[in-house]
Amino acid sequence: MERVATSSNSDLMLHLAIDIGGSLIKLVYFSSNSSCTSDDNGMRVIKEKQKDSNGDVNYHFLHGRLQFVKFETAKIDECIKFLSSRQLNCNGGRFPEAHAGNKNIIKATGGGAFKFANLFKEKLGITLDKVDEMDCLVAGANFLLKAVQHEAFSHINGQKEYVQIDHNDLYPYLLVNIGSGVSMIKVDGDNKFERVSGTSVGGGTFWGLGKLLTQCKSFDELLEWSHEGNNKAVDMLVGDIYGGADYSKIGLTSTAIASSFGKAISENKELDEYRTEDISRSLLRMISNNIAQIAYLNALRFGLKRIFFGGFFIRGHAYTMDTISVGVDFWSKGEAKALFLKHEGFLGALGALMNYKRDDLGDLLSHRFVQQHPTTSGGAKEDSLHSSTLLSVGEN
Amino acid sequence: MERVATSSNSDLMLHLAIDIGGSLIKLVYFSSNSSCTSDDNGMRVIKEKQKDSNGDVNYHFLHGRLQFVKFETAKIDECIKFLSSRQLNCNGGRFPEAHAGNKNIIKATGGGAFKFANLFKEKLGITLDKVDEMDCLVAGANFLLKAVQHEAFSHINGQKEYVQIDHNDLYPYLLVNIGSGVSMIKVDGDNKFERVSGTSVGGGTFWGLGKLLTQCKSFDELLEWSHEGNNKAVDMLVGDIYGGADYSKIGLTSTAIASSFGKAISENKELDEYRTEDISRSLLRMISNNIAQIAYLNALRFGLKRIFFGGFFIRGHAYTMDTISVGVDFWSKGEAKALFLKHEGFLGALGALMNYKRDDLGDLLSHRFVQQHPTTSGGAKEDSLHSSTLLSVGEN
Repeated sequence: MERVATSSNSDLMLHLAIDIGGSLIKLVYFSSNSSCTSDDNGMRVIKEKQKDSNGDVNYHFLHGRLQFVKFETAKIDECIKFLSSRQLNCNGGRFPEAHAGNKNIIKATGGGAFKFANLFKEKLGITLDKVDEMDCLVAGANFLLKAVQHEAFSHINGQKEYVQIDHNDLYPYLLVNIGSGVSMIKVDGDNKFERVSGTSVGGGTFWGLGKLLTQCKSFDELLEWSHEGNNKAVDMLVGDIYGGADYSKIGLTSTAIASSFGKAISENKELDEYRTEDISRSLLRMISNNIAQIAYLNALRFGLKRIFFGGFFIRGHAYTMDTISVGVDFWSKGEAKALFLKHEGFLGALGALMNYKRDDLGDLLSHRFVQQHPTTSGGAKEDSLHSSTLLSVGEN
Repeated sequence: MERVATSSNSDLMLHLAIDIGGSLIKLVYFSSNSSCTSDDNGMRVIKEKQKDSNGDVNYHFLHGRLQFVKFETAKIDECIKFLSSRQLNCNGGRFPEAHAGNKNIIKATGGGAFKFANLFKEKLGITLDKVDEMDCLVAGANFLLKAVQHEAFSHINGQKEYVQIDHNDLYPYLLVNIGSGVSMIKVDGDNKFERVSGTSVGGGTFWGLGKLLTQCKSFDELLEWSHEGNNKAVDMLVGDIYGGADYSKIGLTSTAIASSFGKAISENKELDEYRTEDISRSLLRMISNNIAQIAYLNALRFGLKRIFFGGFFIRGHAYTMDTISVGVDFWSKGEAKALFLKHEGFLGALGALMNYKRDDLGDLLSHRFVQQHPTTSGGAKEDSLHSSTLLSVGEN
């Protein structure tokens, strides 16, 4: 964690916005190296971070960059410490709005903006200017879909394919944000939307149930395990009921899951006799498929062909995205399509950022963000609960 | 278990039908005491069983009765033993169809009718005449809704209210059968239906996950625990995220569940530090609410106002029904209504029974089944995985 705090603390933190969810805190800020003491250092930081990244694509720096950092909500002290160090090094003890006469006021969203308002005031002298969570999710998604090249992609059978978004044909769409819980929002335009559905079975369920069942140390460990798991050790499949046969009349193959975790009923096995990998896989399939199904039913209800999935549950995890894609395809009989967002976890924080006055953001929003040097992970082990990714702004 | 096998073995087992699901085996048969060796004994058996029942309403005997028995699929040997004892005592080694020239052939449905066909042949000399599972669920539901008075009821805030079904206004409806998995069927008439949806998150998930999390000995123990549980010990509520506040803008109160099991993420507690009651309650709410939501979305899709919930997940359990009712009411904004079926778990077996030729069933189907002496449970502890209930036929 020190690593990130140290490597970044020479940047000027402009327009910090924060999204404090039930499980994770997400920070987004715009940093301009031209205002920093050392451009060289700024560049060097970027290159180091490319090695640290989550296998994610990094972006070439042109005139500035959007930086993304996340923390566990349960470890909010680390976030406070991080902000405290930045404040001291970059802005003379003052936060971005200082220059506009609004001392130490930052845009904040998520339920934690209410819950932790006093903590931010006491520890950092920061006032959280609260912005509605749904407003922010939508603003963030619209911003990404319009301003960032190679933001949206499909993910089917392990194959990622970028989708070119025609700005004139973006609306309406269904936005499914999978955080601790899940919100489903019908988006009809800029600031024009309705939260039409949601489910409590989301990322918090995967992590919470997973922790109880496997004693995993982190969300990412649990996700990692799922790679090696086989859900048939835990799930009751159609073939388990039908003696190995399909139930083809209603379109269910023998390997279709009839009952998630249903096999545990009849087996005389204790919890610790199951492989954590199998439990994780079963849990991931159950939750991903359930979200896909409810999302599809809502898309159908409003005649929406495109469903964008965001939120930190996904974490760029291939199997999660494949499961969601298969779910949407299966239930819609190929009529609807699941699409994913590269900056999936930061929709709310980005949306909060959009709430700064246009004057304050300067020309940030008039730029188009471009991906210029896609790289793959350098293989360095990442502290995924306190990591950062970069998005640079370049003139289009 | 001997209790049931012994107490009933003087009945003539006519028209036995069997539904072998992933977790449970359900038997239904028509017994006519006029064919039994001792009418007195037959009557006495009924009275004893009223004391054994699941708190369920029993039915007065007039001309015969439908009897319902269930077993765990994992303990199929108990079912075989039960049938074996009946066969020997009641029908001279022959099963009901014997008189019609079809020796030892019984109607069977559910996946286990395929899986266990050989076992029934070897152990009992019985051939299972397989009938499609969805056909049977629908036939069983239609039979109950038309022929049995006081079959369907609503259940809201602990209040049960019987619903009078107008036979001319029964269709279309959505049938949601919650067994190990869940099937959702749009029913448009006799033998006219489509399985429109389903979910793998069903009774098997409650039982399987519950067993892994709590080491419960049975489904009913787990269900019993849920009475005393409080889900807020395990679930992340809106108020947990919002610092005690509602998120009223989108209609979520502070006590609404934001993330099922989400509280387990941030608490440094081992699994055994949670109360089994709280885990059970949380699991029950998660699954019941999820089914209600998916059911409602499917009802909405086809413009169906009535949703009948059946299947052994429910088990006449007040809190389960209330949760489903609240879910349907919440998501439909009061437009759709959840209804429940008294003989919820036996739809498939009853439907299989309907597949005997009309000639063989005699006048069974021309009768109207009536409830004449509702009683409450006599308090005897029941072996719920091998219990029986009775439904008597009377001329209307």
